[in-house]
Amino acid sequence: MSTPPVRRRTASHEVSAALLRAAETVLDRDGSDAVTIRAVALAAEVSPTSVYNRFQSKDGLIVALAMRTLAQLAEAIDVPVDLAPQERFRQSCRNYRDFALRHPARYALIFGSGSPLEDQSSEVADAGRAVFTILSGLIGAFTTVATERDLAESAQAVWSAIHGSVTIEQAGIGQTPDLGSTFEHVLDLLTDGLTA
Amino acid sequence: MSTPPVRRRTASHEVSAALLRAAETVLDRDGSDAVTIRAVALAAEVSPTSVYNRFQSKDGLIVALAMRTLAQLAEAIDVPVDLAPQERFRQSCRNYRDFALRHPARYALIFGSGSPLEDQSSEVADAGRAVFTILSGLIGAFTTVATERDLAESAQAVWSAIHGSVTIEQAGIGQTPDLGSTFEHVLDLLTDGLTA
Repeated sequence: MSTPPVRRRTASHEVSAALLRAAETVLDRDGSDAVTIRAVALAAEVSPTSVYNRFQSKDGLIVALAMRTLAQLAEAIDVPVDLAPQERFRQSCRNYRDFALRHPARYALIFGSGSPLEDQSSEVADAGRAVFTILSGLIGAFTTVATERDLAESAQAVWSAIHGSVTIEQAGIGQTPDLGSTFEHVLDLLTDGLTA
Repeated sequence: MSTPPVRRRTASHEVSAALLRAAETVLDRDGSDAVTIRAVALAAEVSPTSVYNRFQSKDGLIVALAMRTLAQLAEAIDVPVDLAPQERFRQSCRNYRDFALRHPARYALIFGSGSPLEDQSSEVADAGRAVFTILSGLIGAFTTVATERDLAESAQAVWSAIHGSVTIEQAGIGQTPDLGSTFEHVLDLLTDGLTA
C-alpha cells in the first residue's frame, strides 16, 4: 500500500531531472534566449504541458538552470583540502576558468547581464552567495585580514579579476598571445597583492 | 570656381558626423542589436539611402561606432601627466570605470561578446591596441618589468581586473555593499601586486 506513492514520487523527480538536462542542452547549444517551454519540450521529447507543469514559465526554467549551474560551479571550485592554502586557491581559480570556458552559455546565464542573481532576495542570489563564500574561505586561508568586511572586499576584487579574465578570453579580445599563461600572471598578481 | 567643392566636402563630413551621432543615440537607447540602417535614418531624420551610402550595412555602422567609442575611451583614460605615476594610473582606471558605467551599451559593443575587436586584422583591433598601449604605458611608469612581454602580461592582468569589476557592477551582481569602494580595493590589490 505504501510502495506506489513512493515509486510515483521518484519517477516525478526523475522526469524533472531529465527536463532540466534537456533545458541545459538547449542552453548550451543556443543560449539562454532559446530556453523556452516549447524548445525544452522538443529537446526532451515530451509535451509542452509536461514542461509547463514543472517550470511554469521561461523564467522558471532560467532560475532552475541558474541554480544548477551555480551548484556545478561551487563543486568545481571547492578543491580538496590536501593542497597548501595558496595553491588550493590557485587551483580553484583555474577550475573556475575551465568551467567558464567549457560552458560559456551557462556562465553567461549566471554572471552576464540580465542574470537572475540580480534579484538579491531570490534563491539564485543565495546560491550565488554560497559560491562567493567558498572563494572567500579559500582567500581567508592564506591571508590576514582585519575584518569580515575586508575579506569580502578581497574576495570581490579576486572574483572581478578572474571574471574579467574569462570574459575577455570568451569574447576573443585579449591582447596577449597565450591567455592561459596570462591567467597564471593574474593569479601571481592577486596572490602578491593579497599577501603584500 | 574652387569654393563649391570645398563647401560640399565639408558638408559631407558634417553629415557623416551627424549620422554617427544619431547611431550612437540609437545604441545608447536600445543596444547594438537595434543599430540598423533604418533605425539610424529614422533617428537622423534622413532617408535610409543616405545612411546606406555612408556606412553600407549594419556592420559598417557597428565598426564606425566601435572606432568612435574606443577613441572616447582612449581620451578618458589618457590622464594628464601632472600626477605621480601611480596616482595617474589609478585615476585612469577610475575614468575607465566611469566611462563604462555611463555608457554601458558602448562599452558592451567594444568589449562584450560579438565585439568587432575579435577580428585581429581590423581597424577596430588597431584602435583597441592603441587603448591597451595607453594602459601599458601607465603601468610601465611605476613598475619595473624585465621585458615588453612582461609589461603586456601585467597590462592584460590589470585590464581583466578592471573589466571584471565594471561588468559585475553593470550586471548588478556584486557581493559587496559599495562597489565604488571595492573598486579602490581592486586598485590597491593591483598596485600592491605590481610593485611586490
